[in-house]
Amino acid sequence: MPISSVVPPWTDEVLDFAQDLAGQARSIALRWFRHQPGIEVKADASPVTVADRGVEEFLRREIARRYPDHGVLGEEFGIQAGDAPILWSIDPIDGTRSFITGNPLWGCLLAVLHERQPLLGIIDIPYTAERWVAVRGRGCWLNGERCRTRAVTDLAQAILQATSPDLFGEADRRAFDHLGQAVYLRRFGGDCYAYALLASGHVDLVVESGLMPYDYLPLITVVQEAGGIITDWQGRALTAQSDGRVIAAANARLHEQALHRLTGS
Amino acid sequence: MPISSVVPPWTDEVLDFAQDLAGQARSIALRWFRHQPGIEVKADASPVTVADRGVEEFLRREIARRYPDHGVLGEEFGIQAGDAPILWSIDPIDGTRSFITGNPLWGCLLAVLHERQPLLGIIDIPYTAERWVAVRGRGCWLNGERCRTRAVTDLAQAILQATSPDLFGEADRRAFDHLGQAVYLRRFGGDCYAYALLASGHVDLVVESGLMPYDYLPLITVVQEAGGIITDWQGRALTAQSDGRVIAAANARLHEQALHRLTGS
Repeated sequence: MPISSVVPPWTDEVLDFAQDLAGQARSIALRWFRHQPGIEVKADASPVTVADRGVEEFLRREIARRYPDHGVLGEEFGIQAGDAPILWSIDPIDGTRSFITGNPLWGCLLAVLHERQPLLGIIDIPYTAERWVAVRGRGCWLNGERCRTRAVTDLAQAILQATSPDLFGEADRRAFDHLGQAVYLRRFGGDCYAYALLASGHVDLVVESGLMPYDYLPLITVVQEAGGIITDWQGRALTAQSDGRVIAAANARLHEQALHRLTGS
Repeated sequence: MPISSVVPPWTDEVLDFAQDLAGQARSIALRWFRHQPGIEVKADASPVTVADRGVEEFLRREIARRYPDHGVLGEEFGIQAGDAPILWSIDPIDGTRSFITGNPLWGCLLAVLHERQPLLGIIDIPYTAERWVAVRGRGCWLNGERCRTRAVTDLAQAILQATSPDLFGEADRRAFDHLGQAVYLRRFGGDCYAYALLASGHVDLVVESGLMPYDYLPLITVVQEAGGIITDWQGRALTAQSDGRVIAAANARLHEQALHRLTGS
């Protein structure tokens, strides 16, 4: 079911604002990176740092000031006006485990949804100064250069990536391994960076489970506008109610083959 | 057994030359990165690219021109004058799998050994413009700033890293998992970058198997001069004849506990 590529008239204004926010969030996060931020452990055992909280507080404050009617869904401070027609999704630091171990491949994720449909997505990687920006119907861009997924359509030639084998539950791990046996190469690491590499045509499949809406909502427009497909493990469109299992593929043929391996294991 | 910290009088000259080489190798490798280099598969199934060969050819040519009497050990073109008192060890692109998948965490590794003992080591990361340089007795430096390993001495608080679970054989994987269960966090990814993060105090343990001399010889001085320890899985000093199992630790107490878990599994 194709999504309308007609965008609301305020799209450019919101996009400019979102990019400006990403730039400021970058500076804030980098101040803490590799400077031993205080690390706490949340109820679900995932780590959180003063940098996660600081960046999200900054983003929420700026969005509320500029657009008091917009809703916000964020990792650290929950959902606010979730029924608003325009909803922001924020992950201040996607890849906190990378962040606390000095690894540069963490990023700030932003999405804007209009009437539940993703309108724009941003993956900003502060340390490498790379920003992937995508708007529905207008393509995906890395630092101003157009990105496209690869044309590889044979699973045996595909490169598969996931953040860590340790983030899958047992059954999901078996399904992932079954897919992993059919590809050319599987790689671990990256969080949002894996999806950015897919959008830029370096990785062909990203498969994960246990993701939260703020983890994957910003990825949807980036992957789709680069020519890829991103769904849950049943091939259904991702929504804020999805089960956290995500598969992104460079193209439809690869997506179909990979889904078949994943669910047929 | 402490290694003498007296360095030969020509150390500074060779260090300057090595840093200059690393800078030029950086430019050469970056020309190919993310520009779909031709990938071949070697006899051991590891990939090699025109970039690996191009960088190593450049380094060998420059070393032979400046120091015709020095020996060279390299990944792509083998050993040359291996009995020379001064031996260079070259890994033109450590992390070829990262390189071919667009991941920025690959590097160029250089070491100079004098009478079989590592004298200097360089880890250069082209994409992030980071260079770790260490000389025996003079410390370890990242872009001119002194690096030191962390003081964490409790295994339960330690961060463990390895490039990929897929690079271990079955028995080594079990040993690694046994150690992994005892640490605070384990992370995958990085190749040489993992050891660089250890030298800078962000990661506390790096454990790998299947490494070749050109993979680990350049790491020895970097890790030791930052205050860490790097040995084989029996706790013995690494030499060109080691079995490819490597453990690096932030300090002696962590090293001892980690070795105990590894070998007692």
